[in-house]
Amino acid sequence: MIYRGELTVATRGRGTYDITRDVARIVGASGAREGLATIWIAHTSASLIVCENADVSVRRDLEAFAARLVPDGDKLFTHDAEGDDDMPAHVRTVLTQTSLGVPIANGRLALGTWQGLYLWEHRTSPHDRRLTISVVGE
Amino acid sequence: MIYRGELTVATRGRGTYDITRDVARIVGASGAREGLATIWIAHTSASLIVCENADVSVRRDLEAFAARLVPDGDKLFTHDAEGDDDMPAHVRTVLTQTSLGVPIANGRLALGTWQGLYLWEHRTSPHDRRLTISVVGE
Amino acid sequence: MIYRGELTVATRGRGTYDITRDVARIVGASGAREGLATIWIAHTSASLIVCENADVSVRRDLEAFAARLVPDGDKLFTHDAEGDDDMPAHVRTVLTQTSLGVPIANGRLALGTWQGLYLWEHRTSPHDRRLTISVVGE
Repeated sequence: MIYRGELTVATRGRGTYDITRDVARIVGASGAREGLATIWIAHTSASLIVCENADVSVRRDLEAFAARLVPDGDKLFTHDAEGDDDMPAHVRTVLTQTSLGVPIANGRLALGTWQGLYLWEHRTSPHDRRLTISVVGE
Repeated sequence: MIYRGELTVATRGRGTYDITRDVARIVGASGAREGLATIWIAHTSASLIVCENADVSVRRDLEAFAARLVPDGDKLFTHDAEGDDDMPAHVRTVLTQTSLGVPIANGRLALGTWQGLYLWEHRTSPHDRRLTISVVGE
Repeated sequence: MIYRGELTVATRGRGTYDITRDVARIVGASGAREGLATIWIAHTSASLIVCENADVSVRRDLEAFAARLVPDGDKLFTHDAEGDDDMPAHVRTVLTQTSLGVPIANGRLALGTWQGLYLWEHRTSPHDRRLTISVVGE
């Protein structure tokens, strides 16, 4: 069985957004008991990560690390048509994920206890981000 | 339906190579209307990225960033049997992607407007790079 | 055909662990001749990489690079409930892979000559790491 679900996330600017429940809902709607759910984000300045879901300080530290590794306004970058955060957003996307393949077991996403699925918005301003969830299962 | 396509890309050395059309052609040949196309690159010194496809300065800046983050000839590295770019190529591969799962919708790759699929050659000399595209669909 | 295999790897602390044979065994048990094997690691402080499998110095240099990029005990990090390696383990996970989609061709994993599949333990102490291998094939 092949099933496709679409998801739009309205971000409020840079930061991480938990999409675990939204993806789980689409997997539920697919009716798959066993298989694979592949998440795709249709952008090059926002990305996907799997991150610890209990302590918000993890995602805060992650943001601090990204800001140090790929600083906004870095003199190295020439591509700044959309601002200081334009090229850093592309780099941060390339260093993280655009697709994730998550197992489905017994009708549910087979995540570990501490795993959450997050959309990482890399632009400082709000954006509508589109995702596709492709379910292959039975 | 399961379909497998093979692709070889002859690179001219370090840089990004647009493979979007080649992958789309294989998905077309598969006949899948809905499903998933998973791209695999069979190497450890070249990788896959999804990147902005409009302005070439994005990929130029990305190359500059990678050169600063993982410099050729870095004294940290002991593995240099094939030259100064040997170990940096492995690190750059690990920090990007070896596989990408792209949704298929209405018989086409469901990419965002600005998304291109790129092979990133990390070695400075030309190489033939082999890719497998696995289509699961209906 | 959909098949799910489970794998537990007992790590001895930080380092890379070759899981290629374990994954190949599960693909063999699935009976798939053609298709896709997607590996998922159910943790946020250990990850998956595809790396050169011939010269151990590659993985040693990779470890040295990670230690320099994301140092244990970095003052940037506030999340250190489980020690100096706590937050670095999360960052290293986000910069590498939680899922990998590997093609199956003629009943085998279609890896390149020099490719090995590795679990990368980022914590300094031993852990039991759980993986799911989802096979979609025929």
